[in-house]
Amino acid sequence: MKSILTPLGPKADKDTVRRHNLSLVLRAVRDEGESGEATRAGVAARVGLTRAAVSSLVEQLMDSGFLTESGKTFSGQAGRPGTALKVARTGPAGLGVEINIDYVSVCVVDLAGTGRVRQTEHLDNRGAPAGEVLARAAAIAARTLDSAREQELRPVGVALALPGLVSGGAVRQAPNLGWNEVPAQDLFGDALTALRPGRPVLPVASENEANLAALAELWFGGLGDVRSFLYLTGEIGVGGALVLNGELLRGAHGFAGEIGHVVVDPDGPECRCGSRGCLEQYAGQSALLRAAGVDGPGAGGGSGVLELERRARAGDVRAVAAVAEAGRMLGRVVSGAVNLVDPDAVVLGGIYRGLMPWLSPPADEELTGRVVSGLWSPGSGRLRASSVAGDAARGAAALVVQDVLDDPVAYAEPSGG
Amino acid sequence: MKSILTPLGPKADKDTVRRHNLSLVLRAVRDEGESGEATRAGVAARVGLTRAAVSSLVEQLMDSGFLTESGKTFSGQAGRPGTALKVARTGPAGLGVEINIDYVSVCVVDLAGTGRVRQTEHLDNRGAPAGEVLARAAAIAARTLDSAREQELRPVGVALALPGLVSGGAVRQAPNLGWNEVPAQDLFGDALTALRPGRPVLPVASENEANLAALAELWFGGLGDVRSFLYLTGEIGVGGALVLNGELLRGAHGFAGEIGHVVVDPDGPECRCGSRGCLEQYAGQSALLRAAGVDGPGAGGGSGVLELERRARAGDVRAVAAVAEAGRMLGRVVSGAVNLVDPDAVVLGGIYRGLMPWLSPPADEELTGRVVSGLWSPGSGRLRASSVAGDAARGAAALVVQDVLDDPVAYAEPSGG
Repeated sequence: MKSILTPLGPKADKDTVRRHNLSLVLRAVRDEGESGEATRAGVAARVGLTRAAVSSLVEQLMDSGFLTESGKTFSGQAGRPGTALKVARTGPAGLGVEINIDYVSVCVVDLAGTGRVRQTEHLDNRGAPAGEVLARAAAIAARTLDSAREQELRPVGVALALPGLVSGGAVRQAPNLGWNEVPAQDLFGDALTALRPGRPVLPVASENEANLAALAELWFGGLGDVRSFLYLTGEIGVGGALVLNGELLRGAHGFAGEIGHVVVDPDGPECRCGSRGCLEQYAGQSALLRAAGVDGPGAGGGSGVLELERRARAGDVRAVAAVAEAGRMLGRVVSGAVNLVDPDAVVLGGIYRGLMPWLSPPADEELTGRVVSGLWSPGSGRLRASSVAGDAARGAAALVVQDVLDDPVAYAEPSGG
Repeated sequence: MKSILTPLGPKADKDTVRRHNLSLVLRAVRDEGESGEATRAGVAARVGLTRAAVSSLVEQLMDSGFLTESGKTFSGQAGRPGTALKVARTGPAGLGVEINIDYVSVCVVDLAGTGRVRQTEHLDNRGAPAGEVLARAAAIAARTLDSAREQELRPVGVALALPGLVSGGAVRQAPNLGWNEVPAQDLFGDALTALRPGRPVLPVASENEANLAALAELWFGGLGDVRSFLYLTGEIGVGGALVLNGELLRGAHGFAGEIGHVVVDPDGPECRCGSRGCLEQYAGQSALLRAAGVDGPGAGGGSGVLELERRARAGDVRAVAAVAEAGRMLGRVVSGAVNLVDPDAVVLGGIYRGLMPWLSPPADEELTGRVVSGLWSPGSGRLRASSVAGDAARGAAALVVQDVLDDPVAYAEPSGG
């Protein structure tokens, strides 16, 4: 699955230009639709093409099932009546599959970015071989695809969100899953294809889960003017991602954002990554629960993290102290990252969301003391919890949709299909 | 001084398009000139415009003094003879002024990027008020402008390279100079204007010195394929900058790259920035000389750093141990930065250049142990000394030249000037 269209160079031919313009018009309808009604005239003004050109492009996008008319018309305009346009709620869509340590979550997102189907299963993926985990995920994905079909949605590709170092379609290292050099894309793709005999083979992409959760935050998190942020997600480990000027930083090898393995104490406990004293050893879920003395779900049921939240809320001294210490370590490491990249905001997701009341004050205190420039002050709002609207599975599905929006022609329904 | 042209939107008018094309052609001649001869036909092919359009643009650029013909012609081509083009060695240029703790260095760079005039003076800028330091720098700049004029170079603007947090034309904080909220651009500009009665007033820009040194490294350092790197410069403090995908990361407030204030030991010595245990306290020049027991220039003369190098080369145990310890601390902090942004390379400049034989092995060892993915290995070449070709003053001057290349019309010689 290609992610970025070849830029339009001087030698762009007519076909390339038309495809580019189809993408412009489709995106314009989607964006206009968010704030009101999209009309051909409005789209023409927005993208700087003539009304006639836009009408022709809209016609092709309607024929291919990307756009529909809402039925509402506007009077008083010259030429063809100003019928409101919107992106189709059916047709091309994206499938996102998050495989994490203790759950698999699958999501279908439509062209407008709306999550339409969601299936989540809690599983212990640490105990099973990689091939088995990926086959289980494929089975959940296959069921989700059936549900999508009932809604007349047609996912055109799959993106996998994986908790580790991902490059070239493989998981190079995912210490918390115990994976090394696992060709996840191929294993998942083969399993999914085997489960859907006679159906089109779906292209599969893959990406680090924190990267995709950060993109979901960017696209759906209501961040307002924030275009650059550091994202940390507390899971079994600590995932991280950097979004700079609205773009995900992937890094030279695709491994950027690994803030969980920034050293806190050079002589600290061994980390699964091979180093010592990484942030993960102080602020990861296992470390946090251990320090708080939480062994499991507790009397109230639910996960260990919910039990930790319950105890902190009840004022349990050990629980509150454990979360505060994790907050201090987070703040210390994040202050270094803020000094290095000077982001607009730092967003905490995963298990940190629910722990913010106890985590955030000591983290803010470290940041206030250690960020240069005196620009960090407690309560500045630069340290914030992630939105519930975004997660890695939705980010993955939306990444597939981005590809459709970039070049709709490539994803038009095969004739007779 | 504006740094980036308004992007060409749909409403770009003819004048904007022509100015944009003049920039394209000027840059093309400059780039072609590096690898051989630039001809009108070659430039036309490179930028995707017709030969006729390029000839007209070239004529305007020659009339305005940006391009010249080398006199060499190529036969066998249709139409006007294929005369080789090159960027002018006279005319518009950039002036860069680096004000550091113990020196001021001023540099003039021509359109081709070549450093043409350089004046450096060693001064103790810590002892003097900011206004006085800037007035001294202006006096050196004025003399440098006289030298440039003798070479028929016409600097069209000045960029200041300053060792601190710079934004909006002011130094917000430069702990090692003792500056706080110093309106450096205005103070320097006024002083320079007063020294040059009757001459045109030059616009003044300002930027963090490590950022400009990193840009100089990018443009002149022979980095090859390296497009993303972390740059650290050892001065009295430790400066830093991040170049990602060929672009300097400025950050939300212009303060990115402050790796000197990433914490090494939360309970370590107080830092001038207000925090404790910053990298600067372990790997800055003062800390390094103190740990090595070097009080001053030593018997051989030269700076304290040269004396430290001399002792390390002679096998002085204390000197070698001090540099090695600084290398370990550098490696520890840099490993965190590498985990966060995954750059192609880490470049060490300033005092670190000469100390590489003793600094680099322990730094590499820390990096090897702490960078995730096992991709960091000693001797991989990802840790390297900066080139001698680039420095902050040249970077500053070249930044001014970038503005000229972006919109030559704006910098054409005033008629009769």
